[in-house]
Amino acid sequence: MATPARYSSPPGRVPSIGLADVARSSDIALANRLADAAGAAIRPLFRSNWTHEAKADASPVTEADRAAEAAMRRLLDAEAPRDGIIGEEYGAERPDAARQWVLDPIDGTVSFMAGRPIFGTLIALLQDGWPVLGIIDQPIAGERWVGAVGQPTLFNGEPARARSCRTLGDAVLATTGPQYFDDHDAEHFMALAAKTAHKRMVFGGDCYNYGLLASGHIDLVVEAGLKLHDFAALAPIVEGAGGTMCDWNGDPLSAESAGYVIALGDPARLEDVIEGLACHH
Amino acid sequence: MATPARYSSPPGRVPSIGLADVARSSDIALANRLADAAGAAIRPLFRSNWTHEAKADASPVTEADRAAEAAMRRLLDAEAPRDGIIGEEYGAERPDAARQWVLDPIDGTVSFMAGRPIFGTLIALLQDGWPVLGIIDQPIAGERWVGAVGQPTLFNGEPARARSCRTLGDAVLATTGPQYFDDHDAEHFMALAAKTAHKRMVFGGDCYNYGLLASGHIDLVVEAGLKLHDFAALAPIVEGAGGTMCDWNGDPLSAESAGYVIALGDPARLEDVIEGLACHH
Repeated sequence: MATPARYSSPPGRVPSIGLADVARSSDIALANRLADAAGAAIRPLFRSNWTHEAKADASPVTEADRAAEAAMRRLLDAEAPRDGIIGEEYGAERPDAARQWVLDPIDGTVSFMAGRPIFGTLIALLQDGWPVLGIIDQPIAGERWVGAVGQPTLFNGEPARARSCRTLGDAVLATTGPQYFDDHDAEHFMALAAKTAHKRMVFGGDCYNYGLLASGHIDLVVEAGLKLHDFAALAPIVEGAGGTMCDWNGDPLSAESAGYVIALGDPARLEDVIEGLACHH
Repeated sequence: MATPARYSSPPGRVPSIGLADVARSSDIALANRLADAAGAAIRPLFRSNWTHEAKADASPVTEADRAAEAAMRRLLDAEAPRDGIIGEEYGAERPDAARQWVLDPIDGTVSFMAGRPIFGTLIALLQDGWPVLGIIDQPIAGERWVGAVGQPTLFNGEPARARSCRTLGDAVLATTGPQYFDDHDAEHFMALAAKTAHKRMVFGGDCYNYGLLASGHIDLVVEAGLKLHDFAALAPIVEGAGGTMCDWNGDPLSAESAGYVIALGDPARLEDVIEGLACHH
């Protein structure tokens, strides 16, 4: 295969804009307040009594999802009234703004509804379509990863580091579930999975897998079909921990990406992963 | 298909022995101390720095696994010296005893090694081969399910109740991972899964799924290839919460079972599940 353009880029995900400007400490503080507000809305509804009702598409969208996004939107409207918002539940506001907050109040709704504390609230800030700030917040366990371009990723305030991985055969691979791949994607995924430490493969987990990767407990996450609100927050977290995140072709993730995602703790294994997938999207 | 013998049995899993004798409060207190000891051994090692080394079979058996089982065995040797022990790590002692403690210090080693707080310590007491007492302990989140024949299951000291499920199409199904089924089993499993609320299907989770079922958050867990130490503790927990647990034929679980396991929150759906699997083992 051709070497992806990414390999010849200078380090860093957002090569063409001034990094110092894009993830200000005031933005990080606001993002933390958004996560606090979402967690306060979510916690009382975790493991409450659910009926078996669902929307027509059987997607488990919950009262908690809506309450958490509404709480975050109220804060953004008050504190960042000129920024755009792209929310999983309530759509887009000010879509022409250069700065866009991307909100997924509950990533991992299946886990949330099953009572598993491995879902997360995702908050990202895009600058000109590039994710420059991201938060994964797990409000039940009280766990938060914060990543910002040019800064070390923090887990509960302490630096997080992805781990090295000598060969692809050692890599612990995670993915949310086989049902999220279509037949064609599943074939490529399984070809890759067979080259990893597949007996230790982790299923389920959604965004939580990317936090665990940033903290050095998982080596590789590969998924397909993600939406912008599913992946925008993850890239700054993974990359600020020393890992790399890109699409299945090795191209950096942006608002234009198709949702085929690789997160890798040890960037030295990227060529092996892309060859293992043997698939261009 | 023929109606399984179970349907004509009197209620309760252990029909032929005196229930009052088999799960004494002193046994429950001892089982709780075993779980405390295992948790104390496990907690310091969770999310510690792992290398990529593994045993020859690539099973992620860890220092924590061994330390926790050793701690439980020391307590049993001191407090129940005539009882047998069947441990995942250190084998069997006094195999002819009528009472057998069955220990799985870390069920869900893949989750443990990936840093996910959804593994569990499993402790069961068998009387003449029948599980009469079971504990699932999650030592990081501080969550414990305790089940004993003839008593309501407790979650952190409060009664746990499985939920009702009007039709199989409403059922949220969980299973640890597709790689644990062989091709033949997977076919039957997928036939069943297609009849459940499969968009909300939960992957990963090991013993934790059975605790969540006992607490009314999941309706159905179906697995294959489990060992006695994987399932013995689960049956009293699920049944004490109003659910039912059996093999893929509908027969109750005992030391003789082959490890094809169904746990179901609403026993009224059992016939549907067994028909959905359409498979005798």
